[in-house]
Amino acid sequence: MSTTDKALACAEAGFDASITRWMDWLRIPSVSAQPTHDADCIQAARFAQAELEQLGFQATIRQTNGHPVVVAHHPGPGGTAPHLLYYGHYDVQPAEPLDLWTSPPFSPTLIDGPNGKRVVARGAVDDKGQVSMWLSAFRAWHEATGSMPARITVLIEGEEEVGSPNLESFVTANAAELKADIAVISDTGMWDIDTPALTTSLRGLVYMEVTLRAAARDLHSGMYGGSALNPINALTTALGQLTDKAGRIRIPGFYDGIADVTEKQAEQWDKLAFDEKKYLGDISLRLPVGEIDRTALERLWTRPTADINGIWGGYQGPGSKTVIPAEASAKISFRLVPGQNPDRIAEGFRTFMTALVPEDAKLEFKVFGTAPGMQIETDSPFVVSALEAMHDEFDRPAVMIGCGGSIPVVESFRRVLGIDSLLMGFGLDDDQVHSPNEKFDVACFRHGLRSHVRLLGKLG
Amino acid sequence: MSTTDKALACAEAGFDASITRWMDWLRIPSVSAQPTHDADCIQAARFAQAELEQLGFQATIRQTNGHPVVVAHHPGPGGTAPHLLYYGHYDVQPAEPLDLWTSPPFSPTLIDGPNGKRVVARGAVDDKGQVSMWLSAFRAWHEATGSMPARITVLIEGEEEVGSPNLESFVTANAAELKADIAVISDTGMWDIDTPALTTSLRGLVYMEVTLRAAARDLHSGMYGGSALNPINALTTALGQLTDKAGRIRIPGFYDGIADVTEKQAEQWDKLAFDEKKYLGDISLRLPVGEIDRTALERLWTRPTADINGIWGGYQGPGSKTVIPAEASAKISFRLVPGQNPDRIAEGFRTFMTALVPEDAKLEFKVFGTAPGMQIETDSPFVVSALEAMHDEFDRPAVMIGCGGSIPVVESFRRVLGIDSLLMGFGLDDDQVHSPNEKFDVACFRHGLRSHVRLLGKLG
Repeated sequence: MSTTDKALACAEAGFDASITRWMDWLRIPSVSAQPTHDADCIQAARFAQAELEQLGFQATIRQTNGHPVVVAHHPGPGGTAPHLLYYGHYDVQPAEPLDLWTSPPFSPTLIDGPNGKRVVARGAVDDKGQVSMWLSAFRAWHEATGSMPARITVLIEGEEEVGSPNLESFVTANAAELKADIAVISDTGMWDIDTPALTTSLRGLVYMEVTLRAAARDLHSGMYGGSALNPINALTTALGQLTDKAGRIRIPGFYDGIADVTEKQAEQWDKLAFDEKKYLGDISLRLPVGEIDRTALERLWTRPTADINGIWGGYQGPGSKTVIPAEASAKISFRLVPGQNPDRIAEGFRTFMTALVPEDAKLEFKVFGTAPGMQIETDSPFVVSALEAMHDEFDRPAVMIGCGGSIPVVESFRRVLGIDSLLMGFGLDDDQVHSPNEKFDVACFRHGLRSHVRLLGKLG
Repeated sequence: MSTTDKALACAEAGFDASITRWMDWLRIPSVSAQPTHDADCIQAARFAQAELEQLGFQATIRQTNGHPVVVAHHPGPGGTAPHLLYYGHYDVQPAEPLDLWTSPPFSPTLIDGPNGKRVVARGAVDDKGQVSMWLSAFRAWHEATGSMPARITVLIEGEEEVGSPNLESFVTANAAELKADIAVISDTGMWDIDTPALTTSLRGLVYMEVTLRAAARDLHSGMYGGSALNPINALTTALGQLTDKAGRIRIPGFYDGIADVTEKQAEQWDKLAFDEKKYLGDISLRLPVGEIDRTALERLWTRPTADINGIWGGYQGPGSKTVIPAEASAKISFRLVPGQNPDRIAEGFRTFMTALVPEDAKLEFKVFGTAPGMQIETDSPFVVSALEAMHDEFDRPAVMIGCGGSIPVVESFRRVLGIDSLLMGFGLDDDQVHSPNEKFDVACFRHGLRSHVRLLGKLG
């Protein structure tokens, strides 16, 4: 019997206890956004610290300018075993609106669902459930071998749900301590309940705000209409040029540096037979937008976007007011993909708008965040091991998928620590993340726990 | 000595008393928008009623669903003398912000200005000052002849500043009583301090709101960007097509039925040498918008517009939120000119938008008000008399000008009573109407009073 098999047996023997610990953690309402839960955040951090200490880790709670960070180390077997950095977060989203929950959000409840049992609670999957999987995998190895098969560093933060304002400075200040060979993160999803997935590409983001100012004050549209520049007309005229009829974004140089999806990757995605009709039908839409010559998964995972996230100006109340306002504003975000330079995209948008507005219009731009798109090196031995671990567990090949959003920590780890991340998560699309009745299927939790046991066996 | 000269002499002899009555009326804070001033509105109505009774009118205060209306009748000399309907309003705009007033808004103050004395108060010109001119003209005729030179009906409402919600129904219900040969209204301006003007064209209005709905709920732009329809993108793309590069509005049929300005009118306006540079410079703009092949006064008085008066959708708070909202909305108003059919313009906008938004977009339209553009019959003997009256008074020809806004009562009188209006007003551009420190120059008041005396002499 291999040590991995022994660890899997321990995981099975201790499975009910794993569920209990997961549910105990969920009882702590560690809502990072709400100051009334500050003490709960500390308690949730201590819970993780205590568990890691039980498993032979040296675990500490470290202060930041916000909620504390749990950092733990296990030396592993020494020798040539790699050094792994496990990242997760103990904080959760606010539970509101409470009246939409079928059971109290911080009283985790085991109920039956189409895939067997599920745990319903705020944080059930995001991220306490996913972190609990690898904590229980550590426990299985600890029970099977008295040690870990690799050198392990753990970093569990408490501010992911509020944008991780203190994480990057913490990682930078403690880079020597956190530096490893690869990061392991479980905060993503499977393709479907039967198909495990490794997320290997993430879109980046440039988020901007533009304000267009015209006259020095609000004007009466009867007295000035036909002579005075209307900033809403001018703003919509310019923003209305963002995309051409083929769905391509018209900012000059916008697509510079973007590589096409490899044939191998495209083939794999074709096999997934993504049902965009159903995906859109679920939100009452029928027809996709975006580049008409790209497949749905290409558009969602590997192509950049330009979405206006907010717009405002003039009179927004009931009825009518015949005003030509002094200014109008919009918030625009660009989802970026590898190859695009966020600063150049921001500059391109500035140039694009400036060229399209009347000479009299005064433009002001703000940039609220930039992050490049990320492509994980898919040929690395770590990726191969992760795919194999899931293949073994599910008896079905794991697919490499993209994620349309950003996971900023992945970019921080690469930039500050110089390491890639294995995004091996076990959530499902219907997990209601950030919504009432968040859940995590026990079947997913079990597969995830066992996949993490196997990954440790392969990497060790 | 003609009766007109006698009346003018009476006007001069009683001029100081006219100023006193005007200022007494201004002391009543008849703010129609503020319920705390309801009693003041009634008092302001009674003030006008009392004055008319002194001049031999049979004057009544008539209830409406809002503030009351003053209606008064004078039989005049009988015979072939025409029947004139004088319209004005006793209500005023709110005075706020109070701290910007140099003297209390309801303590009318005589101060020196570049054109001599002026009265500063809320309502100084709009409309108590302008109404006071023709009330004093009635008094001059009453004192000179013991009667009026024409049959006169007076209608003074108390809700003009809140959109006259009850006026049209009142006019309709009392059409037989109010029916006259022509209406006389002093609520407009002169061309400049030396040049009297008759306003002979008014732009109309169609005010609409459009809401574009996409997905059934707000979406995460990372998860859905590149596939899901963004209603702000779609709305700006469609609205961005409203105007072409030459400043023409691209709604099909938008310009149907519009006649060009007559050569005579164009020549007269050219002579006015309107300084658009200064007009725009005063509001910190340099370059006009609108149709590039039209003169400034054509654009302001005789050409239709499309102004977006408000727009909103998605996230408008500080910082960033990566949302694809479920909907976005805008308010759009079209200033109309004679020949355009408001209903057809509204329908044209619906058709235009529907053609430009993606198939999945659900559009909802609201119409908040429609009024056609108005052209006063300039060859009528009433217009000729009004122009002559002002020419005599100013020793300079009066010009016929347009107004970029609407005066809805003019349209109601034409539609319900079948009569045109003489828009003979004596305000100046710097009167601060609706703003702090509203004023009316005493020189304008005197010329206006005397022009009304002369007009009565010509029409009688």
